[in-house]
Amino acid sequence: MLSLLDLCARIDAGRLTPEGAIGLVREAIAAREPEVGALVCVDPAPVVPGKGPLAGIAVGIKDIIDTADLPTRMGSAIYDGWRPRADAPAVARLKTLGAVPLAKTTTTPFAFLDPTATRNPNHPGHTPGGSSAGSAAAVAAGMLPLALGTQTGGSIIRPAAFCGVVGVKPSFRLLPTVGVKCYSWALDTLGLFAAGVADAAHALALLADRPAIARVEEAGAPRIGILRQDFCAAPEPEAEAALARAAQAAERAGAAIRDLTLPAPFGEAFAVHGTIQDYEARQALAWEYATHRDALPPRLRAALDAAQGIETASYDAARRTAHHARRGLKDVFSEGGFDVLLTYAAPGAAPAGLDHTGDSRFNRLWTLMGVPCVTLPVDRTSAGLPVGIQVIARFGDDGRALAAAGLIERALRE
Amino acid sequence: MLSLLDLCARIDAGRLTPEGAIGLVREAIAAREPEVGALVCVDPAPVVPGKGPLAGIAVGIKDIIDTADLPTRMGSAIYDGWRPRADAPAVARLKTLGAVPLAKTTTTPFAFLDPTATRNPNHPGHTPGGSSAGSAAAVAAGMLPLALGTQTGGSIIRPAAFCGVVGVKPSFRLLPTVGVKCYSWALDTLGLFAAGVADAAHALALLADRPAIARVEEAGAPRIGILRQDFCAAPEPEAEAALARAAQAAERAGAAIRDLTLPAPFGEAFAVHGTIQDYEARQALAWEYATHRDALPPRLRAALDAAQGIETASYDAARRTAHHARRGLKDVFSEGGFDVLLTYAAPGAAPAGLDHTGDSRFNRLWTLMGVPCVTLPVDRTSAGLPVGIQVIARFGDDGRALAAAGLIERALRE
Repeated sequence: MLSLLDLCARIDAGRLTPEGAIGLVREAIAAREPEVGALVCVDPAPVVPGKGPLAGIAVGIKDIIDTADLPTRMGSAIYDGWRPRADAPAVARLKTLGAVPLAKTTTTPFAFLDPTATRNPNHPGHTPGGSSAGSAAAVAAGMLPLALGTQTGGSIIRPAAFCGVVGVKPSFRLLPTVGVKCYSWALDTLGLFAAGVADAAHALALLADRPAIARVEEAGAPRIGILRQDFCAAPEPEAEAALARAAQAAERAGAAIRDLTLPAPFGEAFAVHGTIQDYEARQALAWEYATHRDALPPRLRAALDAAQGIETASYDAARRTAHHARRGLKDVFSEGGFDVLLTYAAPGAAPAGLDHTGDSRFNRLWTLMGVPCVTLPVDRTSAGLPVGIQVIARFGDDGRALAAAGLIERALRE
Repeated sequence: MLSLLDLCARIDAGRLTPEGAIGLVREAIAAREPEVGALVCVDPAPVVPGKGPLAGIAVGIKDIIDTADLPTRMGSAIYDGWRPRADAPAVARLKTLGAVPLAKTTTTPFAFLDPTATRNPNHPGHTPGGSSAGSAAAVAAGMLPLALGTQTGGSIIRPAAFCGVVGVKPSFRLLPTVGVKCYSWALDTLGLFAAGVADAAHALALLADRPAIARVEEAGAPRIGILRQDFCAAPEPEAEAALARAAQAAERAGAAIRDLTLPAPFGEAFAVHGTIQDYEARQALAWEYATHRDALPPRLRAALDAAQGIETASYDAARRTAHHARRGLKDVFSEGGFDVLLTYAAPGAAPAGLDHTGDSRFNRLWTLMGVPCVTLPVDRTSAGLPVGIQVIARFGDDGRALAAAGLIERALRE
């Protein structure tokens, strides 16, 4: 994979020019894209700033994020040829930092569950996950050092874990979702994919203009709660093994480890995620549903058909349930004395087949809670498929989640 | 003015067809629009549904709200000829209800402070207010029975009060801001303008799919706190007189009236509104600022120039201050035993001149608090300019705010 920090270091040292770094990326794309299919389009002649903290860094932009210089198709023929007037703020921020939004990456249609044609770079017969399929696959295939994605259920953490890259779903609204096609305004969260934890932390700190997020090394050994999310179906053995391996690594690095079970309100919040997501999607995609229902892919069309029947009172009750759990989560951290929680990133490695995107059940509650989540690869199956784990911190404590993930990453290397 | 409920009643009774109701609106537009200048464009041949609870109701759509069938210019040459692909969810919802989004209404550029050419229908030499200038003026001039607007500081309540119509800024996110050009995602709130309180309540209940909002008559006599917002500069005598007149009317109708002063944290929250608004606007309009700075109007350009210097730490501190005040506001209502608060809608009647949009100081705190606000006209100056007051309720208690406003409206008639 292409390390963002390594590229920046070579450019700072004068051993590589920003143009040269973009050239390396173009070579990697030429070599890997035909088999992976992670990109919707590549800018043939982008502006390449000579300066800036991210000068020379080519970035993949999930194709539901507005770009003024490239089409934005939302993964759907309904938006064929669509060209937004403005860059989304996150894209404009990348340019200000010197980065090059070089390519749009594949997304499932409107970031729901209908799969893309993208293949898992670790095994062409397995899904890369979704909905941010192209962003995860492009970074995993070494085509891009950084990519933007979004998560409403498990659309960043799941594909990152399936592809074997670091994925970050930051605190809700740490990065603006302005200019991002909405599915659920209470859930949609903008995040990123990178080769390693330090790469991701550096990029997030710059994007969010919060340098403390990247001070990964400065944090001491964390107190970690091991969480098995037993309010939903158990994972596969490989996910259980990865969690144990990560916990042991953290312990070796000096972290204090303790098992944790969440009280009932969190299971109730987990159960209402879909009500909030689907009720809001019914409104967010009302024009597409009213005017282009037949052009919607089957899973999305079925979900929106079903969503028409959700009572507003059920939605309001679901929001109260989520609000109650959000407040309770603060006590879980403080009363338990936990800095971060460690749990599954997905039920297992990327499942076989390209006709689905895998299961988001270990991600949905955390998107609803709005707390920062980081996944990193810790293991590989005999088939060579990566298995990741997920680190979760308090709302607004994104740097802490990245620090703990970095500690585990280093401990696993030793 | 055109009463939405009156038009619906005549259509239900078969005394008017939906096409006929649209025809009445076209006649009113032909008569008043040349002198008022509230409309950006009118759909020459819209679909007019024959059925639906809002069949025959022509609606004005503020020109920062996406429409698939009409251009969306954001009040700026930067968006000349811009045509969104999709309707904003609020526009799609209007169509589902049978309404006709007939016209786009003028907005200040990107809904900031640079004025439009729209004139106050009550006096052509006075501002209609802003940023939702066209929506307020079109309803006041009797051209439209309903119009959508947005408020980030005082962009619904202020123009409604200046023009002498009922304006509603609902609870934050009661109506989705998806497809609405963003200025500040923590503040932007979608709302509406109508001829009377019952008209507004009926429309909001339908748009939000919450029938209880329109059960205005069912509420008993409210306990009202009279609030003078002494954390900002005092209003003009006409605003003070209007507040007293509304309080007396409410008391005659059986309401319990008591003066109320807010503790210090609310003054602090009022003071940080601009930090949150401008820091987010810097991001929301980053593309426009980076690529078209010279095409921005002077007030907006100056505000964005200044916003470049806002520290992220100041923004984070401002959000904490606002959060603290939001939680404290619940206690203000419960401990004081208040159903609603009654305060100024603006510092006075619409000021003379078209080179400004008036002052939003009595609105900004309430936008930041996310609570429902309703304004209704209670008085007129010797120059014939209306003076409104503002009713405020708890978050999510939009129906209560409308019920109290309706009580005052009826008491003033007697």
